[in-house]
Amino acid sequence: MERRTFLAGAAGATAAVGLAAPALAQERTTWRMVTTWPRGFPGLGVGAQRLADRITAMSGGRLTIEVFAGGEMVPPLQAFDAVIEGSAEMSHGAAYYWQNKSQATNFFTGVPFGMTSRELAAWLRYMGGQELWDEVYDQFGMKGFINGDTGVQAGGWFANELQGLEDIQGINFRTPGLGGQVWSRLGANVVNMPAGELFAALQSGALDAVEFVGPYNDLALGFHQVRSHYYTSSFIEPGAATELAVDRAKLEALPDDLQQIVEIACQAEYDQVASDFYANDPPALRRLVDEHGVTVHSTFPDDILEAGAAAARDIFEELRASNDELTRRVTEHFLESLSQVRTRTEQTDAPFVAARERFFDLS
Amino acid sequence: MERRTFLAGAAGATAAVGLAAPALAQERTTWRMVTTWPRGFPGLGVGAQRLADRITAMSGGRLTIEVFAGGEMVPPLQAFDAVIEGSAEMSHGAAYYWQNKSQATNFFTGVPFGMTSRELAAWLRYMGGQELWDEVYDQFGMKGFINGDTGVQAGGWFANELQGLEDIQGINFRTPGLGGQVWSRLGANVVNMPAGELFAALQSGALDAVEFVGPYNDLALGFHQVRSHYYTSSFIEPGAATELAVDRAKLEALPDDLQQIVEIACQAEYDQVASDFYANDPPALRRLVDEHGVTVHSTFPDDILEAGAAAARDIFEELRASNDELTRRVTEHFLESLSQVRTRTEQTDAPFVAARERFFDLS
Repeated sequence: MERRTFLAGAAGATAAVGLAAPALAQERTTWRMVTTWPRGFPGLGVGAQRLADRITAMSGGRLTIEVFAGGEMVPPLQAFDAVIEGSAEMSHGAAYYWQNKSQATNFFTGVPFGMTSRELAAWLRYMGGQELWDEVYDQFGMKGFINGDTGVQAGGWFANELQGLEDIQGINFRTPGLGGQVWSRLGANVVNMPAGELFAALQSGALDAVEFVGPYNDLALGFHQVRSHYYTSSFIEPGAATELAVDRAKLEALPDDLQQIVEIACQAEYDQVASDFYANDPPALRRLVDEHGVTVHSTFPDDILEAGAAAARDIFEELRASNDELTRRVTEHFLESLSQVRTRTEQTDAPFVAARERFFDLS
Repeated sequence: MERRTFLAGAAGATAAVGLAAPALAQERTTWRMVTTWPRGFPGLGVGAQRLADRITAMSGGRLTIEVFAGGEMVPPLQAFDAVIEGSAEMSHGAAYYWQNKSQATNFFTGVPFGMTSRELAAWLRYMGGQELWDEVYDQFGMKGFINGDTGVQAGGWFANELQGLEDIQGINFRTPGLGGQVWSRLGANVVNMPAGELFAALQSGALDAVEFVGPYNDLALGFHQVRSHYYTSSFIEPGAATELAVDRAKLEALPDDLQQIVEIACQAEYDQVASDFYANDPPALRRLVDEHGVTVHSTFPDDILEAGAAAARDIFEELRASNDELTRRVTEHFLESLSQVRTRTEQTDAPFVAARERFFDLS
């Protein structure tokens, strides 16, 4: 009786699944989540732990998730491979960390002049984006879920105010991914370097400038002690979505209720992590200005933005002509979807924010 | 053994809860969700049904939610009272529908020149907003969870392009809530009327103008057949959050895993519903323009915006001086939190969107 009522209510449980599920439904399974973050890393590492705790709690412990911070089981950038190889069941990071496997992964995290966090979710959930992501990850036996987003990131820390393109020629600038490719085409000498080494490199002069996440994370890393000009709005990272990548075969072998719990916990976290950044970036920025005397610039000079947009378009044209058919298709679909979804942001959201800023003074 | 392992993994389950939970954990409970929406209503009614299905699925049917559309069990605007009176366990609607119980409820849905959907979630989840909401709903034995948001709504349908304040004097305009109070102070004759009667009232001339949700919903209601000027960006509804209001004592009597499932399902839906609107508003707007010849204005004339902002400030000042101590406190806390959280939207998000619009042409 107990088993039957349990199963009868599981929406989407077919008769066939029903036959397989009861044995598992009462079992307790422990899964290992390897992450790409330091333990307790604000926003993102904290989010990985909370996601694990929520899956454990919602399943009443039937699916208990054990978290390994970056380096505890495998180095951060081997998290995805650890799942492929079977030493963990889940990897928490960002899809674009695996761009050496497929350039298409960039689009599921964030790309220069690309989608905001709301636009990305709309693409994935309603416009066919998730289905494309599934195709990309099927190649590796994996399934990806977005589960957090930083929102639009900051543009970076510089020694001086930038007057234009001439000021960034040849500077040693730490900025990763496709955004790094954009800055490189603009004339910067783009360097990649782990977070833990950035402060010392700025201090020694090995780096001229750095771009990391935003005020909440940047304040913790102390960049304001060695650079005083902070650009608060990035054009290369309009958001960065975190991912949970799960061994697909193991996921599909779970009872339907546990599969739903994993997927829905990720979606709830997509809101929770964004809320964390939206709540905690403003006080961090205020401290940077009020207590540390940082000079804030909300936007880069026009010629940098214009050249950045041209470079981003060139990169997308190259991805559209990729040798990899799936990368071509994802690029095309992303750009087509962006051209639709951006209209809401531009014609509905942006005019409200502008009107509020102009007319609704709270000070 | 089975019970012990089940409980051992339930994060947050105290020993006391542990004693009560096992008996319930194996039971199947059916709860009734009364909603304020027509069955199948795009975005919001669909969201209520999906929320119910997700709770049912994640709980493996142990908490099965049966949905009643507006009018099926009680009239839409009696949903909250139906839960208080015990004929249902959950009400799906919007907190500001209950503003006759407390004016503070407005802030948990959306107010003129107030918070966007991201800002609202940041306030509720990280800045103390949910705790205030809990205080307000404790008065009624209820607990509220946001579980959807329309995003910034459209400003409304008018017969002609508006040149300024003089064009809205005395017009019969359907626009509810605090936004209606703003338009009333600007000189419009504000009317409230259920959705089903709006089209006929516009056709007969009983109404001059109407404001409802946005392109996705408005297209379905056919307003374009009788009005041709569409303002796409509202200043009175920067978002409207839907709520699930639950009988608090019954919720707290559930085992911890089911309580978590209810809360986390709501948070996932907050993302899902917003994604639905962000994905489906743009094609609806394009159809309104391309197929139906609607003229789109993204923003109202400056003098309307300026007077609207002044009226909104006056309304907030009155709420700050309310007889109800809790309404005073919520108003104060909301405005203080808005002044913080808006800085991220204005200094980080808005410059990105503006730069993309100016420089990154996809056409």
